[in-house]
Amino acid sequence: MGSKTVPHFTIEYSANLDDRIDFSTFCEALRGAAVATGVFPLGGIRIRALKCADYAIADAAEENAFVDISLRMGRGRDLETRRQAGQVVFDAADAYLGDLFDDIPLALSFEVREIDPDLSFKKNSIHQRLKAHE
Amino acid sequence: MGSKTVPHFTIEYSANLDDRIDFSTFCEALRGAAVATGVFPLGGIRIRALKCADYAIADAAEENAFVDISLRMGRGRDLETRRQAGQVVFDAADAYLGDLFDDIPLALSFEVREIDPDLSFKKNSIHQRLKAHE
Amino acid sequence: MGSKTVPHFTIEYSANLDDRIDFSTFCEALRGAAVATGVFPLGGIRIRALKCADYAIADAAEENAFVDISLRMGRGRDLETRRQAGQVVFDAADAYLGDLFDDIPLALSFEVREIDPDLSFKKNSIHQRLKAHE
Repeated sequence: MGSKTVPHFTIEYSANLDDRIDFSTFCEALRGAAVATGVFPLGGIRIRALKCADYAIADAAEENAFVDISLRMGRGRDLETRRQAGQVVFDAADAYLGDLFDDIPLALSFEVREIDPDLSFKKNSIHQRLKAHE
Repeated sequence: MGSKTVPHFTIEYSANLDDRIDFSTFCEALRGAAVATGVFPLGGIRIRALKCADYAIADAAEENAFVDISLRMGRGRDLETRRQAGQVVFDAADAYLGDLFDDIPLALSFEVREIDPDLSFKKNSIHQRLKAHE
Repeated sequence: MGSKTVPHFTIEYSANLDDRIDFSTFCEALRGAAVATGVFPLGGIRIRALKCADYAIADAAEENAFVDISLRMGRGRDLETRRQAGQVVFDAADAYLGDLFDDIPLALSFEVREIDPDLSFKKNSIHQRLKAHE
């Protein structure tokens, strides 16, 4: 039940960003950054986005928007490694959003937390497929 | 990387509530309560709702419903402050749902947890906009 | 504010599974397994699924898919009890997905974590309804 190979990125975003950001491409940008960290086995990387149709942000101005990213990863890497990997992915998200911070009031956040290895279960046939294609 | 300013409220609810509750207004009610606590800087408040189209609750009776609220907040406030702030927002949610508890079998839950400040990254242009409007 | 009765299962899955898996039935299968553990009071069981329309998995091959299950439960049960309950539900998920692991590159994961009882609030009219039907 080792869980080193489990980086889960879940993105929640306000629906008013839907016509400004392509979240499929955004997921792909984060995937590239996660691969580039060198910390995560390729077959374990899972990034997804959830659109929040209903929301209320700050002073409730209509143009307020948010992108919130949670990374859950397996235990077994030291704090500095986790922080550096987090920074790489955060920088990729920041770069992707780019000038949007100037255009609209936008909050980007990114949190990293660990998964308890004693209470983690998994099964994965992606690894085999990747090996078959090597 | 101080993260005191980060209150994230994520609401998950069973889709059978969609014709009974306006979750946009519900988010707004929680936003008002979060502001009223005095604990959270205005520019950092983010509340959103996610509709769960598929679900199975308790004995699986069709009318069973749930509203589950998770609050993630930055570290740096003592337990009593967090508990009181949580209570204010929970009471607002409870008041909003009101008689619905008598009408249908409904479970409301609210959990507060802290974000690890060492593994939190963010960028926010809402604060500047709020200052510009002061 | 005891929170022993709070098992929340949230399933996130890649949208490319939508034509292969009926997630309503999947939720029901997990509900049955959760009941069978004997650990959770019936009225507190809440299972739901969230479809992730946008995602990027492993090497980004189109057929890659994931099902990720998070269980949040009230504190007050020992590690072994939590692990066994987790295993029962994981096995049910695994059995339900069955041959799909051979058909496509699929990652199933399941994480258990506890809810802080000091910062948990709730109200539930499902319990009363269940009692009324006993």
